[in-house]
Amino acid sequence: MIDKALSGDVRAIARLISEVENETSRSEEIMRSIYPHTGKAHIIGVTGSPGSGKSSLVNKMIGTLRRQGKTVGVIAVDPSSPFSGGAILADRIRMQEHSGDPGVYIRSMGSRGSLGGLSKTTYEGALVLDACGKDVVIIETVGVGQSEIDIVRIADTVCLVLVPGMGDDMQIMKAGIMEIADLFVINKADREGADKVAAEVRLMIKMFHTGEGWTQPVHMTSAATGSGLDELQSIIEDHLKHMRSSEEGADRLRKRLQWEVEEIVRRRIAKITESAWEERREGRIIEELYNRETDPYSVAQDVLNGALTKIRSGQLV
Amino acid sequence: MIDKALSGDVRAIARLISEVENETSRSEEIMRSIYPHTGKAHIIGVTGSPGSGKSSLVNKMIGTLRRQGKTVGVIAVDPSSPFSGGAILADRIRMQEHSGDPGVYIRSMGSRGSLGGLSKTTYEGALVLDACGKDVVIIETVGVGQSEIDIVRIADTVCLVLVPGMGDDMQIMKAGIMEIADLFVINKADREGADKVAAEVRLMIKMFHTGEGWTQPVHMTSAATGSGLDELQSIIEDHLKHMRSSEEGADRLRKRLQWEVEEIVRRRIAKITESAWEERREGRIIEELYNRETDPYSVAQDVLNGALTKIRSGQLV
Repeated sequence: MIDKALSGDVRAIARLISEVENETSRSEEIMRSIYPHTGKAHIIGVTGSPGSGKSSLVNKMIGTLRRQGKTVGVIAVDPSSPFSGGAILADRIRMQEHSGDPGVYIRSMGSRGSLGGLSKTTYEGALVLDACGKDVVIIETVGVGQSEIDIVRIADTVCLVLVPGMGDDMQIMKAGIMEIADLFVINKADREGADKVAAEVRLMIKMFHTGEGWTQPVHMTSAATGSGLDELQSIIEDHLKHMRSSEEGADRLRKRLQWEVEEIVRRRIAKITESAWEERREGRIIEELYNRETDPYSVAQDVLNGALTKIRSGQLV
Repeated sequence: MIDKALSGDVRAIARLISEVENETSRSEEIMRSIYPHTGKAHIIGVTGSPGSGKSSLVNKMIGTLRRQGKTVGVIAVDPSSPFSGGAILADRIRMQEHSGDPGVYIRSMGSRGSLGGLSKTTYEGALVLDACGKDVVIIETVGVGQSEIDIVRIADTVCLVLVPGMGDDMQIMKAGIMEIADLFVINKADREGADKVAAEVRLMIKMFHTGEGWTQPVHMTSAATGSGLDELQSIIEDHLKHMRSSEEGADRLRKRLQWEVEEIVRRRIAKITESAWEERREGRIIEELYNRETDPYSVAQDVLNGALTKIRSGQLV
């Protein structure tokens, strides 16, 4: 199945991503096998607040890339329901024009996972598409918050999509994610206020920029009219060239590799502990907590002792 | 210091929260000591997308609660910079009218931490305010995404603030966080489109509600004019009464306690692993990863083996 996927078989790719997404027993073996084939694709993160028109923009980006003869993979991250654990069926209708194109693979993934907004499995999904020969992999995140911070660890190029007419909290947001954007896209540029937003962003870049390395461009687009799309693609490519030839880019890759190791370690240890906690939870410990006969700190200590006993006796490694 | 804080000393409370926020060596001991004093406050989560006017609303809520003679603590969660690790200084000017009132304690906290949007330290900050005698603790989160999912684990009552005039992605958001809201606040109700938003939300409630337990009210407010604020407070109190007298509320508390234990365990294990990883990282392992002489999965296995050796030899428990 891995060989089939690596040669571009769509059904095999879909199955690999499902194994990775569901963290089956084979998922780590899969990742280990495909890892040597990764590192070729340009991973682009597209992020921004709700209503900024990210999906339409990504749809237009796919069109531009296809005209250049490049194959494209898209991972669209949806907010998960905390109860069902499943991804919400977002209306991806605007991307459906590419559904018959064998050079495009689009996949929705849930945002559950230890990292919050953007999970390790999302990254692994992107790595699968990379290994399977996609020239460009776009990760589109819905929402603002932790996912913006995570995406910088994953993407070569982070595009932050802004839109005229957002409220004042938006300004705080912009400050918070200022540092992680490689370029700013002012989308819906035909709307009133687009110039004002662009001017504000340029002012913030001036204030925050250290004077060294990449300076974030501010680019106007309209996914509706198609204006600015080709230029956007060439800015994104300029950024990739910069990252692949500078110490700044090398540092970012080093940080990403370090984060990958940490995520794998965290995930494995979580599995050991979950097993110890499940055993403990079978008793009436939750009732004891509920009745305040004990406290979460003491129970946590018990669970840890249980996990350590398991590890010491070689039950779980 | 703990005794002083428990008796309401503002400077002692501030120091306790700082210890907890910075996860100092004393933080767990502090939490263990104050834990028996918690469980009295009504913890209210106020969440919603950027631009919904949450800060103004919280400010008005403080005013209402103070007129009822209740003491109030506020934890305002700001998006962290991934690089500085610090909280962004948000413009909390609208809350400053309460800064001279000894019955109000307002604190900004960063959103760094293992959980993403809303960290365990935020919850512990709220517990400190609870233990120190605040009648009501409000947690205000900026942003949408994982923080909305986390807040349900923390708050007795979750208010989701919506506002007229948001884009179409907003609809997806609403579906995603539908289940975690205990009540919907349509803020800026004097704006055009407020009735439409309220009608949409009511329709979604009808679609999603199982017919059992609490039915989420939809309430209109205007933080600007002050309309609907007193009624909002009485709806919030009705919800608390329901939660404290129903099996639904008891179940939620059980889930929260379980999550607390899991968070403490996760945090402790992360510390053990970090120590093993730090030693390994001192060599040229990052360069080996960078040069693709090894892969993250193999390095992670090494780190785990190192942690296990430490645990087995009793170096770290």
